[in-house]
Amino acid sequence: MDVSRPELLSASDAAHAVAAGALSAEQLVQACLARIREVEPTVQAWQYLDEAHALTQARSRDLDRAEGRPLGPLHGVPVGIKDIIDTTDMPTEDGTVLHAGRRPARDAAVVAQLRAAGAVILGKTVTTECATYPPSKTRNPHDATRSPGGSSAGSAAAVAAGMVPLAIGTQTNASTIRPASFCGVYGFKPTHGLISRHGVLKLSRSLDCVGLFARSLDDIALAVEQLTGFDENDLDTRPRARIPFVETLAGEPPLTPRVAFVKTPVWERADASTREAFGELVVTLGRSCEEYALPESVAEAWDWHRTIMEAEMAAHLDLEYEKGRDKLSESLRGQLARGREITALAYQRALNRVPRLIDGFDELFANFDAIVAPAARGTAPPLDSTGDPAFGTLWTLAGMPALCMPLMHGPDGLPLGVQLVGRRNDDARLLRTARWVQMQALA
Amino acid sequence: MDVSRPELLSASDAAHAVAAGALSAEQLVQACLARIREVEPTVQAWQYLDEAHALTQARSRDLDRAEGRPLGPLHGVPVGIKDIIDTTDMPTEDGTVLHAGRRPARDAAVVAQLRAAGAVILGKTVTTECATYPPSKTRNPHDATRSPGGSSAGSAAAVAAGMVPLAIGTQTNASTIRPASFCGVYGFKPTHGLISRHGVLKLSRSLDCVGLFARSLDDIALAVEQLTGFDENDLDTRPRARIPFVETLAGEPPLTPRVAFVKTPVWERADASTREAFGELVVTLGRSCEEYALPESVAEAWDWHRTIMEAEMAAHLDLEYEKGRDKLSESLRGQLARGREITALAYQRALNRVPRLIDGFDELFANFDAIVAPAARGTAPPLDSTGDPAFGTLWTLAGMPALCMPLMHGPDGLPLGVQLVGRRNDDARLLRTARWVQMQALA
Repeated sequence: MDVSRPELLSASDAAHAVAAGALSAEQLVQACLARIREVEPTVQAWQYLDEAHALTQARSRDLDRAEGRPLGPLHGVPVGIKDIIDTTDMPTEDGTVLHAGRRPARDAAVVAQLRAAGAVILGKTVTTECATYPPSKTRNPHDATRSPGGSSAGSAAAVAAGMVPLAIGTQTNASTIRPASFCGVYGFKPTHGLISRHGVLKLSRSLDCVGLFARSLDDIALAVEQLTGFDENDLDTRPRARIPFVETLAGEPPLTPRVAFVKTPVWERADASTREAFGELVVTLGRSCEEYALPESVAEAWDWHRTIMEAEMAAHLDLEYEKGRDKLSESLRGQLARGREITALAYQRALNRVPRLIDGFDELFANFDAIVAPAARGTAPPLDSTGDPAFGTLWTLAGMPALCMPLMHGPDGLPLGVQLVGRRNDDARLLRTARWVQMQALA
Repeated sequence: MDVSRPELLSASDAAHAVAAGALSAEQLVQACLARIREVEPTVQAWQYLDEAHALTQARSRDLDRAEGRPLGPLHGVPVGIKDIIDTTDMPTEDGTVLHAGRRPARDAAVVAQLRAAGAVILGKTVTTECATYPPSKTRNPHDATRSPGGSSAGSAAAVAAGMVPLAIGTQTNASTIRPASFCGVYGFKPTHGLISRHGVLKLSRSLDCVGLFARSLDDIALAVEQLTGFDENDLDTRPRARIPFVETLAGEPPLTPRVAFVKTPVWERADASTREAFGELVVTLGRSCEEYALPESVAEAWDWHRTIMEAEMAAHLDLEYEKGRDKLSESLRGQLARGREITALAYQRALNRVPRLIDGFDELFANFDAIVAPAARGTAPPLDSTGDPAFGTLWTLAGMPALCMPLMHGPDGLPLGVQLVGRRNDDARLLRTARWVQMQALA
C-alpha cells in the first residue's frame, strides 16, 4: 500500500500500516489535519476540532506500540463523531444553542468502544439541529452549492472529503443513508438495537440507531464489528455472540445472492433519472434480481413512523420545548408541537404495528438475501434543504439493517447511492451481499 | 409428613411425597378435587375445571414415575391458573363475555414452565373482568360475605380454601398482594421482568407481572424458581443465571436482617386497627426495624402509575373498546375512556419518572434488606368491592419484588397481610428476609 498520502488510506489499510510500523498514528493524524485545513473552509464539516488534543491521542497510540502494548483493530485510526454523541474530552452541543458548551461527564458507549479499539477521536462533526431536518452549515464536498444531507451532515462530508476515513452518525429516519448517498460514501445503519445508543442524544428510542460512514465496505465491517454488543444502559440491545463482520465479508456467499428490487410507495417521488438508473441496475444484476411488490398496507408505515418519531421526540425534547422553544427552529418547534398532541393510544397503535410489519418481510427474506432500493430521490439538493428522508423511513421503522453504497451518479455528475436492506439481525450477511452487488455493478 | 389429607400438604411436601412414592399424583389430585367439591359451591374460585382431564394429567405423571422418567420439582403437584393466562387444553376467557369460549393455540410461558416442572394444571381460576377492579363471583373462604380481593380472586381463594397448594395470578397494581392479604395466604409478585408474561392477557407492559400464591414461603420459593428466565417473547425479561430460590431461603442470612418500616403517602388510608397492628409489629421486630421516610416527591407515583396503566390498557384493550364497549362494566369502560385521552407526552413523562423513582431507593437498600408496609387498608371488605389497591401501587410501579405474608389478623378475626418489599432483582434475598421476619413475628 502507498502510505505517501495517509489521509486517503482506508481505515483498514491505515490500521495495518500503523500496526506494521509503516506509518505512525501521529503521521496519519497529521495528514488528516492537513487535509482538513485545506478543505474545511469550504466544507465546514467540524463542530469541534482541537488539533493538539488529536495529536496527543495519536502520540499516545504510538507510545502503546513502542512499548509493546496490545494494539486494537483501529489502532491510531482517526474517527469523526457526530456532535450528538457524548465525549468527555470535547463538548457535545447537539446542534442547538440550548446545549451550547455542554460537556458530558462520560463517553457515549460507541466512543468508549472506539477508544478501546485504539481509535483516535479526532473531533466532533456537524449535526443539524438536534439531528432533525433543518440544514446545517456543512456543504457537500462534491459541490459546495449542494447539501451534504442530514442530519449526520458533517460525518458524511468529512469522510467524503478525505478528512477522516471513518465517522459515526445516527439515523432516526434517513440521517445516515441520505447523507451517504449525497456525499458518495458508504453509510451503514445496522439493525435497531445492535449498537448501544447510551450517551447519544435521544430522539426516539424506537427508531434511533447509530450509523457509520466509510469509504469502503471493508471499513464499515471493521468498524461495526467493534461497536456491537449488549449494554445494560440501552434496553434495546441484546446479549449475543460477537458478529464476525470482517470474516463474513471476506468470505464468498455460499450461493449466488438474490436481491429483491423493491419499489416502495415513495418510488414515484424519485427523480426520473434515479428511476432510470435503478432500471439499469436491475438489468445489470440480471437473473439474480427480481422486482418484489410489498403489500399495499405498507403505505401506512410512513404515518406510523411520523407518529412514533414525533411522539417520542416530544418527550425526549420536552424540557427544550418547555424552557427554550423560542431558540428552536420553526421546523423543530412544529415537530415538537405536533408530537405533544399525539395521544398515547395513537402512539401505541403505531408501535404495535411494527412487529407485524417486520413479520411481513419473512416471505421476502425466505427468497432473497437483500432488498435493493433508492437511498434518496436523486443527487444532493441545494443547500436550503437536507433532502427528502422518505427513502429511509420504512427500513428504519422496521429496524432493518440498511446500507448505502456510492455505486451510481446522477446526470449532474454527483453521487447517487444504492440502498441495500437486509433481514433484522443478519447484518453481516447484508454486507457480504453488498460486496456481491458492488462487484456486479462495477464490473 | 402426614399424607392422610393430601389436599393440606404444601406443594413442597406433596412433591416430595409423590417423588418418594408415598402418595400418587392421582391421589393428590383426587384429594384436591374432593375438597373443591366440598367448598366450591360457597367459594366459587374456579372458572373452568374438568376433573377427568385433571386426573388424566395426574395419571400421566404417575406413569412417568413408574417408568423411571425424570421427575420435575413440582411433579404431580396441582396448580390453579388465573383465567387470563393461556392454556391450550382449557379455555381462557379473561373474565369478559367478549372473550367467552376463547381457546388459545398455545400455553403461556408460565404454564409451559409449570408443565415442564411436572405440575398438573388443575383448572382455571376466576379473574375479575380483564383483571381489573369490578368484583368477581368468588367469595372469601374465611367469610363468604367478604371479598377475596382482586383481580387474582380465584387463585388466592383456591389456595386459602385448601383446594390447591399453588396458584398463579398476576399483578398490575395490587392484584396479587391484596387478595393474598384478604385470603390469608402467601402472595409473591417478583421483580418486573423476572417471569415471562408471554401468553398472559396484556394490560400494561410496564406494570404487568405474574404473581404466585401458596401456603408457605418454601412453596413460593419452589414455584418461582421454576418460572424465571429469559423469553424472547417478553421483551422485559433478561438473560440471567437461574436463581437458587430454594437454596437461598434454606440458608441463614449472613447478618441479622434490617427492615425499613415505610409509611407511604397512602398510610393514612389504612384502618386504625391496621396502623396499630403495624405499630406492634415494629415493636416486635425491635432494633432490626426502623421507620424510614420516603421523599415527598414519591406522592406523585400514584398518578404516574394510573397514567401508565390507563394509557397502556387503552391500547391493549383497544379492540374490546372499539367493538364491544357495551359489554364492558362501567368501571372498565371508564378506565379505557380515560386512557384513550392521555397524551403520548403525559404517558412518556410518567414512564420516564420510573428510573429515577427506582434510583431513589438505593439509599434505603444500602441500609436495609427489605421494606415492611401494609398490604391493604385492613381485612377483606364486603363483596361489592375488591378493596383499595393503593398499597401495592408504588412497588408495582417501581417493579420491585413484593411479598404478602399472612402474619396478622384484624379485629374481625380475618387475615391481615404484611407486605415485604425488596430491591429489584434481589428476589431470593427478599424471601430469606421474609423468613426471618416471619420467625420474629410468630415467635
